[in-house]
Amino acid sequence: MKGKYGREAEEKLIWRFQLPYSEREYALRYDLTVPLARFYARFKPRIPFKRYHIGRVYRYDRPQKGRYREFWQADFDIVGVKNPVADAEVLDVVYDVFVEVGFSEFEIRVNDRRLLKGVFEETLGIQGSLLMEIYRAIDSLDKIGLNGVIDELKGIGLKDEEVNRIVDLIRVRGKEEILDTLESKYSTNKNVLQAISDLRTILDYSKAEPKIKMDLSLVRGLDYYTGMIYEVWSPKFSRALSGGGRYDNLIGIFEGSDVPAVGGSIGVEPLIDVGLEAGIFKLDTKTYTQIGVVYIGSTYREAWEIARRLREAGYNTYLDLMGRDFKKQMKYLVEKDIRYLVIVGKRDLKEGVVTFQDRETRKRIKVPLKSLEENLSKILV
Amino acid sequence: MKGKYGREAEEKLIWRFQLPYSEREYALRYDLTVPLARFYARFKPRIPFKRYHIGRVYRYDRPQKGRYREFWQADFDIVGVKNPVADAEVLDVVYDVFVEVGFSEFEIRVNDRRLLKGVFEETLGIQGSLLMEIYRAIDSLDKIGLNGVIDELKGIGLKDEEVNRIVDLIRVRGKEEILDTLESKYSTNKNVLQAISDLRTILDYSKAEPKIKMDLSLVRGLDYYTGMIYEVWSPKFSRALSGGGRYDNLIGIFEGSDVPAVGGSIGVEPLIDVGLEAGIFKLDTKTYTQIGVVYIGSTYREAWEIARRLREAGYNTYLDLMGRDFKKQMKYLVEKDIRYLVIVGKRDLKEGVVTFQDRETRKRIKVPLKSLEENLSKILV
Repeated sequence: MKGKYGREAEEKLIWRFQLPYSEREYALRYDLTVPLARFYARFKPRIPFKRYHIGRVYRYDRPQKGRYREFWQADFDIVGVKNPVADAEVLDVVYDVFVEVGFSEFEIRVNDRRLLKGVFEETLGIQGSLLMEIYRAIDSLDKIGLNGVIDELKGIGLKDEEVNRIVDLIRVRGKEEILDTLESKYSTNKNVLQAISDLRTILDYSKAEPKIKMDLSLVRGLDYYTGMIYEVWSPKFSRALSGGGRYDNLIGIFEGSDVPAVGGSIGVEPLIDVGLEAGIFKLDTKTYTQIGVVYIGSTYREAWEIARRLREAGYNTYLDLMGRDFKKQMKYLVEKDIRYLVIVGKRDLKEGVVTFQDRETRKRIKVPLKSLEENLSKILV
Repeated sequence: MKGKYGREAEEKLIWRFQLPYSEREYALRYDLTVPLARFYARFKPRIPFKRYHIGRVYRYDRPQKGRYREFWQADFDIVGVKNPVADAEVLDVVYDVFVEVGFSEFEIRVNDRRLLKGVFEETLGIQGSLLMEIYRAIDSLDKIGLNGVIDELKGIGLKDEEVNRIVDLIRVRGKEEILDTLESKYSTNKNVLQAISDLRTILDYSKAEPKIKMDLSLVRGLDYYTGMIYEVWSPKFSRALSGGGRYDNLIGIFEGSDVPAVGGSIGVEPLIDVGLEAGIFKLDTKTYTQIGVVYIGSTYREAWEIARRLREAGYNTYLDLMGRDFKKQMKYLVEKDIRYLVIVGKRDLKEGVVTFQDRETRKRIKVPLKSLEENLSKILV
């Protein structure tokens, strides 16, 4: 696992441990990307290899709003394709998922590690830990504002000229404007030019284009990204709901030679949190028809058979298990807000019927026991 | 977690550990029953409380066929009901699940901890670790046969008379015969009589009755069971596919006062293993329609739009991402066994059509691009 996620993750965030019974070192899965790389290296599926994977991951993080120690990720990746149309397809998936689950207000912030490299490392000549400090400073643009970033950059020890150069970049807002600016200012830098060309292809091909914002302050923490990176943000939430990008060297660590790859990941719980907060998702939606079978007196054995038949017909069916009397049965069903009742009484049974009652319309009808399922399927459309 | 699962689990099978960053002791979830007990004690939902829960659990076990260190369990429990109709309902769920997924050959072996207690502890006066050794011996009846069990019991140090008494019990096979035998032999033991009465109710109410076998050699490892216990066995597999029972004291450990409960658990991976082996499940079933979009020459941009439209119409759609020529595109689609093709050529596009091809029937037709989805929905029923 070492050398894949970056120092912070490896030294603080990964659940790693030994058991009392064994000398081996274990760890809980940190993400689904490194496991994909290992899978690919071992089984070498035909390329392009596309897969999705929804699974639990673990972070030794301080639990707080939107941050969990154990949560679900939904990942989608394309392995084997260098062509930026693959990046476009990944952003299409992101777009489709967010639209499909009912989000309309979200933006996809896009940047490229090669821009960061070309501008900061190759042009400004900044290296190592200073580079990381700069990344962290500009990554916090949203939290601390432009002046905050300027203060941070000065605090790190950058010259005014360098600070201005960085600020010039991150304050520009239009996609085309950003790319044009970069192209003219860094026209001799191969990394920058290749990134611009790829980003233009992505903007041309992806249906997510209207939601895409170029954001040169976007960095993403993980070490393994090599090209396009993205994050999905929703106005009401202070954390990215999805993130990913291109990682052309990660699989090579396991495979021996480099295999290009691009993908994305959605944090399921944060998505649910935001969806609930924004009223897009609701917890109390009943997705099935519920029926309460009520027995009167000594009809329990018959009521049990009726409940079984209703369950087999697909209804979510309640029948008292505790020998409670009519009143208490009714109280429980009312509290559970179960709308439909099938009441099983001795006299009815003798006539081969049961009483169906709709608690909402207060309608009551006798239904022949023989054709109970057929009759209910007509009543309960 | 201590004192819930029994010694073997707690000393050898639970993943428990500390992190380099923290003094706290952690453990990975061992099952879904103790978490249910904790949930119930904390949130006290209205009884009867029924819930199902499908989740991963962890065992520090030697990995082997049907045995995993990390696997899924599907649990279903009824909390708050002492009445054995709840046990019958749990067995109904077991029955429904196995029938629903396509199993026909399975049996549900049923026993009751109170029978074991009444016969071995209260009548034979056996206690403590010797009792556990006897349980282990009779639990292995299926593996080592009746003579094997006799040898084991003698090896443990039981007298011939005691061995005979045990053998008399575990070799009887008919359900009613077993219950009648027990009733006559242990007519003064309250535990035995209560268990017999409950088992008769279960056999009377449960629709699983034809699949139920009384099996006095069934013990189950976990300490927390107090009444009926069951396991599901399939002839081709040497491990139980589901197990559970009544645990009327477990919730009390968390809740303070006892709350009766009964439930079951299905090991998802073992079920899949058996289903695959028996040919009930198949891995290569395609559950969706796949279409390969093939571009010829300079029609990639148009092919991309068509692929997008087909995906939005719900088809699993392939389009080359690697700039490959016609021949290589076709090779990939044939290897992937994709039946339907939409071929996008320049001349066709000028006429506003694409070519649809069914690789199986070899039929080829021109389809208007405008109404592509509508046309395909008619062709691909």
